[in-house]
Amino acid sequence: MSSHHIVRDDQEPALIIANGASCSEELLGQLLEWSPLVIVLDSAIERVLELGIKVDVLLGDFDRGFDAAYYAAKQYPMEIVHTPDQEKTDLEKAFDYLIQKGHQAANVVWATGKRADHTITNITSIVQYREKLKIVILDDHSKVFLLPKRFEKWYTAKTPISLIPIGNVSGITTRNLFYPLQNDGLTIGYKTGSSNHVAHDGLVVIEHEEGDLLLMECFD
Amino acid sequence: MSSHHIVRDDQEPALIIANGASCSEELLGQLLEWSPLVIVLDSAIERVLELGIKVDVLLGDFDRGFDAAYYAAKQYPMEIVHTPDQEKTDLEKAFDYLIQKGHQAANVVWATGKRADHTITNITSIVQYREKLKIVILDDHSKVFLLPKRFEKWYTAKTPISLIPIGNVSGITTRNLFYPLQNDGLTIGYKTGSSNHVAHDGLVVIEHEEGDLLLMECFD
Repeated sequence: MSSHHIVRDDQEPALIIANGASCSEELLGQLLEWSPLVIVLDSAIERVLELGIKVDVLLGDFDRGFDAAYYAAKQYPMEIVHTPDQEKTDLEKAFDYLIQKGHQAANVVWATGKRADHTITNITSIVQYREKLKIVILDDHSKVFLLPKRFEKWYTAKTPISLIPIGNVSGITTRNLFYPLQNDGLTIGYKTGSSNHVAHDGLVVIEHEEGDLLLMECFD
Repeated sequence: MSSHHIVRDDQEPALIIANGASCSEELLGQLLEWSPLVIVLDSAIERVLELGIKVDVLLGDFDRGFDAAYYAAKQYPMEIVHTPDQEKTDLEKAFDYLIQKGHQAANVVWATGKRADHTITNITSIVQYREKLKIVILDDHSKVFLLPKRFEKWYTAKTPISLIPIGNVSGITTRNLFYPLQNDGLTIGYKTGSSNHVAHDGLVVIEHEEGDLLLMECFD
């Protein structure tokens, strides 16, 4: 895993490494390539330093006897941000930190896998940041982000596209999906738009009127 | 992995093996110990037969050139249930199959991990079966089930308990949780009760008035 030495462009999305299952070094390497600001959550720092990654910020509540000072000494300079607030997850605190520092976008890895409660909370929490931070959650099988009211992107035919409502979403209309929606509603737990795919090479358009709709590009 | 030869008690929860990440053989072995009816979803059959598990039902839409007849010949007798309905996931079809056959409970493994769209859809879909089938989703880090309006169970102190609302849940009151709720509301994506834990050895009581609330017992 390469460290990064080139000058940082603040428009590059920051990279948050959370504390779920590790992803492939290939995915991590792609995301590190443009030298983003790297934030690591809590005890994930142990696994991250083993990979030889240069970390800018270590953030967490550091409970369960975790010794942040030990890691601060191991890699200098590294900002230590202690966030004991129990009302928010460490991932939400990392989003808040980036917003406060003026960042506009973040990629997140290691936010899925292992504990189901962390996985579902991490994925769904990104809907709170609609106007504040452009967030993409990635793992070896998935790319997840929140859709604006109107979304357009060019895709190749057969790309898997899942539309996952976080709560109720109404007025969904799609163009160029194999199972089209026409002013339809989706409700988490009851009716989701999972396992759809792109009909033809070309522009996919997804519009919705109310609610929080995630797009997931996933593959086996 | 042991196969099963003893007489089956229909009160034993059926076991559904879905098509996500494999769990430990230890967890699988515990669930197979009482010789449940075993249903395998779609191409997961390849991985299941490698483990030497006796399968009763193979269920799926069998798309992408999957040859169910090949596996039917490999293990006899095994019922093949072809379910091409695109409105439901294979896991939902397996739940429907069990209800139709008069089963009252199911454990589910391999329903999480890998694709995030499948993970979130599988976990949240169990809320539809509140009155029809008692469902528990298990993986190596998690045990997930839907709460009745009043839930009581004895737990040891510090057991991690996460309360995850699938949509909006109102009127939640808890007893013997470290972060208590008192007629509170939770909303997926905005406010969840993740990462709580049991305060003292003893009975935990969780009540709610409206909505679908999942309990997750998770561990690192």
